[in-house]
Amino acid sequence: MGTLTELDLPALYCPLESAVHRRVRQVDARAVRWIRESGMCATEHEEAWVVATHSTDFFARFAPVADDDRLLATSLWVYWGFAFDDARCDNGPLSTRPAQFNALAGLVQRAAEAPTAAARGERFVPALQDIVSRFRALGSAAQVRRFTDAHRAWLSGVCWQIGNQAAGRMPDLDEYLAMRLLSSGGEPTFAMLELATGLEVPDAELRRPAVRALTEMAILVAALDNDRHSLRKELSRGHTDQNIYTVLMHQRDLTVQEAVDAATAVRDRVLTRFLRVHDRVRPRAGEALASYLQGLRHGIRGNAEWGLRVPRYLSLGHVPDPMDETPLEWAQAPADSTCAPLPDAPTCGWWWDDALL
Amino acid sequence: MGTLTELDLPALYCPLESAVHRRVRQVDARAVRWIRESGMCATEHEEAWVVATHSTDFFARFAPVADDDRLLATSLWVYWGFAFDDARCDNGPLSTRPAQFNALAGLVQRAAEAPTAAARGERFVPALQDIVSRFRALGSAAQVRRFTDAHRAWLSGVCWQIGNQAAGRMPDLDEYLAMRLLSSGGEPTFAMLELATGLEVPDAELRRPAVRALTEMAILVAALDNDRHSLRKELSRGHTDQNIYTVLMHQRDLTVQEAVDAATAVRDRVLTRFLRVHDRVRPRAGEALASYLQGLRHGIRGNAEWGLRVPRYLSLGHVPDPMDETPLEWAQAPADSTCAPLPDAPTCGWWWDDALL
Repeated sequence: MGTLTELDLPALYCPLESAVHRRVRQVDARAVRWIRESGMCATEHEEAWVVATHSTDFFARFAPVADDDRLLATSLWVYWGFAFDDARCDNGPLSTRPAQFNALAGLVQRAAEAPTAAARGERFVPALQDIVSRFRALGSAAQVRRFTDAHRAWLSGVCWQIGNQAAGRMPDLDEYLAMRLLSSGGEPTFAMLELATGLEVPDAELRRPAVRALTEMAILVAALDNDRHSLRKELSRGHTDQNIYTVLMHQRDLTVQEAVDAATAVRDRVLTRFLRVHDRVRPRAGEALASYLQGLRHGIRGNAEWGLRVPRYLSLGHVPDPMDETPLEWAQAPADSTCAPLPDAPTCGWWWDDALL
Repeated sequence: MGTLTELDLPALYCPLESAVHRRVRQVDARAVRWIRESGMCATEHEEAWVVATHSTDFFARFAPVADDDRLLATSLWVYWGFAFDDARCDNGPLSTRPAQFNALAGLVQRAAEAPTAAARGERFVPALQDIVSRFRALGSAAQVRRFTDAHRAWLSGVCWQIGNQAAGRMPDLDEYLAMRLLSSGGEPTFAMLELATGLEVPDAELRRPAVRALTEMAILVAALDNDRHSLRKELSRGHTDQNIYTVLMHQRDLTVQEAVDAATAVRDRVLTRFLRVHDRVRPRAGEALASYLQGLRHGIRGNAEWGLRVPRYLSLGHVPDPMDETPLEWAQAPADSTCAPLPDAPTCGWWWDDALL
């Protein structure tokens, strides 16, 4: 894929509010204790990398106004998700064995839904059940169900990704975007906004096409930003697995630099559309929906701030470095502000439907 | 697995109301025309077997009071689901290729959710998009979302089943029940009750643990009944794939007759619990929830009546026979009415939680 030094990675365009929960350190100390006691990490090395995801810092930017117990419970799921992803999805023996992974995904998902489900020897199950039992105590049955449905959507995307990897199948842009909307984990992450704030968006508002489109656009912008944050590590390791760059290089016969520019255009066009639809929906939103929409904005921004600094993406050695503290620079304008559907991506075409405005 | 003539298949216990939509014939004539024009069947032979699923008869028993257009749209999905199942899941080149099936499931699911998604050469996609566009016209955004979430749950179960098949992995009872709750297609089938009646159950009622447990129990009883209906065909073809009988024979070292008796006990114990929980929830239910609960009852009964007569299960030749018209006989009492969780099935244990009553 070329080397990092040749690459010009442009600054991110992100005209959204930055915020972070003021008690993030105190809550994170509780989260780290929980990780150590959860039994989900097989080794100290694995535990160190899980802690180094700084997941409380991550979700504290999504939900700057949550009370401590809600920020804790939601951050625990982020920690859990990264730990599961690293041990069972992106790497590890199941990452190219779709038959085995499908069964694991089924059992893990069932454990999230059925409180009596057994762990069956899977170390990630008791930790997940503890987290979901916190959600049941903090949220309504409807909110918890929204989370577990989103959790299944995420796992279905991981199954898809692992299948492609096993089959040596590089998706085209249209398929990649549909898959990445799921496999990125954005669905359960944003579904936790309601659990963090306690505000329940009425079903009729949450399921409106415009609100669904905003949710999907927020997920995709964050997912593409994570592809960008990971690029450094992928290049250093010689990985050539599915990401927005390998997909575009493969489909359009591009160099890595050309793919970086093309991916930036895709991402900025989606963010531009997000801002436009948001500004039409927000003024008519009730309190809970307004809070949810603000959470989408905080999430896009917070994911970018976290991703630009977190050792998960930056740290290339065996042991994770501390969190980077360098001030961030941002682009002043989008690379592509065209108000029209993305080329070659009908799966996202409906986001540009005028009926959403 | 033994032969059919040796087997004593006991009559089903099913003390639930029988009903069928009075305009089932007229609606089915429209459905059959739609199948012929939909482009989803590759050959006339495939089309004949799809028509022979008598899916309108099936769903006319779930929703005896729907208006014609609603019964048509929901019956079309049942036809579509059987057609997809036969061509892409249970048989066909993908039935043991989880990597390829995961990608197909992802694309099909996305097509149900995103109106602009492209068919990408998959003949089942335009037909599904036509059906979901009917749902969008007939139902609320929340009802359609409930259906599409249920649709993903179904496909996740099929991915699980295909993975087990590919890996030559026979699940134990606990895993099988968790998988079968999904792969049977009961989730989207029961999610269509609201689309058929037009009555929207408030999220807070639908997501109550007791209502969720009733839904899962109804799905499992119908799924196990379908395993029973299929047994004749499976035996005649020498199939030994995952079903309640092969699972119990494998785990408990049983003969097929012993497995039939054990499976009947599992199924009747779940139905007994369904009846008990139903009778506590129903008196306090609002109109929409009461209609939904009645739909679960009609569904269990209707699925059994349909399954005991439909050529899909009965017809052993190359060409489907006509629908059987023999009067049905029913068991007068459950084979097992124990009020305690199923042995070896913690995944269902919470259905017996006293807090549901």
